[in-house]
Amino acid sequence: MTAPLDNDRLLRALMREPVDVTPIWLMRQAGRYLPEYNATRKRAGSFLGLAKNPDFATEVTLQPLERFPLDAAILFSDILTVPDAMGLGLYFAEGEGPKFERTVRDEAAVARLAVPDMASLAYVTDAVRQIRSALAGRVPLIGFSGSPWTLACYMVEGGGSDDHRRVKAMAYSRPDLMHRILEVNARAVTAYLNAQVEAGAQALMIFDTWGGALSSTGYRAFSLDYMAQVVDGLKRESEGRRVPVIVFTKGGGLWLEDIAACGCDAVGLDWTIDIGLARARVGERVALQGNLDPAMLFASPAAIRAEVGRILAAYGRGSGHVFNLGHGISQFTPPESAAVLVEAVHEQSRAYHEP
Amino acid sequence: MTAPLDNDRLLRALMREPVDVTPIWLMRQAGRYLPEYNATRKRAGSFLGLAKNPDFATEVTLQPLERFPLDAAILFSDILTVPDAMGLGLYFAEGEGPKFERTVRDEAAVARLAVPDMASLAYVTDAVRQIRSALAGRVPLIGFSGSPWTLACYMVEGGGSDDHRRVKAMAYSRPDLMHRILEVNARAVTAYLNAQVEAGAQALMIFDTWGGALSSTGYRAFSLDYMAQVVDGLKRESEGRRVPVIVFTKGGGLWLEDIAACGCDAVGLDWTIDIGLARARVGERVALQGNLDPAMLFASPAAIRAEVGRILAAYGRGSGHVFNLGHGISQFTPPESAAVLVEAVHEQSRAYHEP
Repeated sequence: MTAPLDNDRLLRALMREPVDVTPIWLMRQAGRYLPEYNATRKRAGSFLGLAKNPDFATEVTLQPLERFPLDAAILFSDILTVPDAMGLGLYFAEGEGPKFERTVRDEAAVARLAVPDMASLAYVTDAVRQIRSALAGRVPLIGFSGSPWTLACYMVEGGGSDDHRRVKAMAYSRPDLMHRILEVNARAVTAYLNAQVEAGAQALMIFDTWGGALSSTGYRAFSLDYMAQVVDGLKRESEGRRVPVIVFTKGGGLWLEDIAACGCDAVGLDWTIDIGLARARVGERVALQGNLDPAMLFASPAAIRAEVGRILAAYGRGSGHVFNLGHGISQFTPPESAAVLVEAVHEQSRAYHEP
Repeated sequence: MTAPLDNDRLLRALMREPVDVTPIWLMRQAGRYLPEYNATRKRAGSFLGLAKNPDFATEVTLQPLERFPLDAAILFSDILTVPDAMGLGLYFAEGEGPKFERTVRDEAAVARLAVPDMASLAYVTDAVRQIRSALAGRVPLIGFSGSPWTLACYMVEGGGSDDHRRVKAMAYSRPDLMHRILEVNARAVTAYLNAQVEAGAQALMIFDTWGGALSSTGYRAFSLDYMAQVVDGLKRESEGRRVPVIVFTKGGGLWLEDIAACGCDAVGLDWTIDIGLARARVGERVALQGNLDPAMLFASPAAIRAEVGRILAAYGRGSGHVFNLGHGISQFTPPESAAVLVEAVHEQSRAYHEP
């Protein structure tokens, strides 16, 4: 497990150290756009059957690396494993998003919440260990968690939501209850990410999928403050090397300076912000990850290459950029488009890293 | 029809002229959160039966003004009337959003597009005339349209979309086709808004609901440029008075300077941006409209009043602010919350307008 990495571009770029080419990985790179993923999922019987079985999780985590020369693996798991371990009963209704059997909407439910015993999440840490072993040092493995606020959204709403009215009503009317949920979530996420690092995760990412649904003041109070608490509690070194942390708030472009100051090493960008402007704003302090519009992968190879060129030029010379999509890859993406993208990033970025 | 307005706060604030209190209206203020609206809709038989009948449209446009001391009326209509008039066949499946019988996805369909005869939209201009007559000068009437890009999203996707992959694939791979659609849409929207002004609309708003789904370069090329074309072609004076134009791009906070430079008089803000920062960025050039999180109306009266106070303080002293939500009011909103909001804005804003 402590073999040196064959390819450590990701870790170097996240620390803004020199690289030969810009590293790339894709959010949701192990997913439904890959026929081999769908085949494994079928064998597993269900999404949770897949996510909760370390053998299957290892298999699908490695699949995109067999197809594309990606510079990182990311643990295959669900962002709602932590509230599931809190006893809320995660399930997936066919054709729908994640749901919880029990929601957290009143004083009694909030009072019952507690940081789960990490033993109940052993299927995740077992998967991390198996994936590390299967990777055998090819590329680093990224561990991850949903942000305290994003977990709270699902815990209060009971599933996905267009308007987040229940969780926001609680945040606005009963901030005491909301802060108690977030405080428990922050401790749980910290313990969960540290357990992943102890099991072998070499970089960490916090997915704040719903922070961008908040107002600017609400974002600071209910999302960013708790991510900062998490980051502050993380083990930042493992196997003799820094474990970089990426914070990604979808729709957080207006708040970049604040996000960059939360203690993270890198900030994830969605596709709505110009990465050159983002670098001018916070590039002295953090690395940037992003930010191709996932819908660009429905365009022609020529259009994909041109947009890669535009993003690389906007970021400019030097390290500190991890190429990625601005959001998870769509299940309808042709896998060939992902191949075009990965190749284009490696080819076109070389010139920006020459001395 | 040319009687002076009893309450012209909206028009004054949009021109950044002194007012006694900050005017307020609510996006989608005539809507499903009002029982009287649901009763009229039931009589009309369907949403389109309501929107296409000037008597019903007048009735529901006036309903929120009977309940709340709002400072503006907004034409009750659908944002997809223009592509419907282009022959695409707008319909609403029960419990779903708007859909089109015919989509615009290939060269032949794009070639067939043309600016519709405004006579086919007479039900809209008739409604404008009837509403003006019914208002009898109480408050100004706002006319509106979807933006060229937002209309194109529905025309290509054939309805709402989570990822806009079809319209973006066209924009990215066949920009020639996309620009042809947008060029026709821009001319159609210009003619449509001018027809509303001729019928009596006293201010105009362009709803760019999906501009925020684009990348920063895509936004300029596919949405903002065409809104600027529309604004440039609008009749800006009527009945001896300026007809102010509000441009609202949901998710456009990163691009405020560009939006403010498109020729509009006011920029609509969603709730994710701090209105004080927005004023510092563009307040010398345009008025600002917004920006309470609609979910705040699920909170307690005390929380609503506190958030109104925060937004008014963030905007600060002087005119140039039209209070509104940052997005349309939710159908689940208790009407009493809207009453609390309107009262709070009028009461608390007075101090910011004293000489």
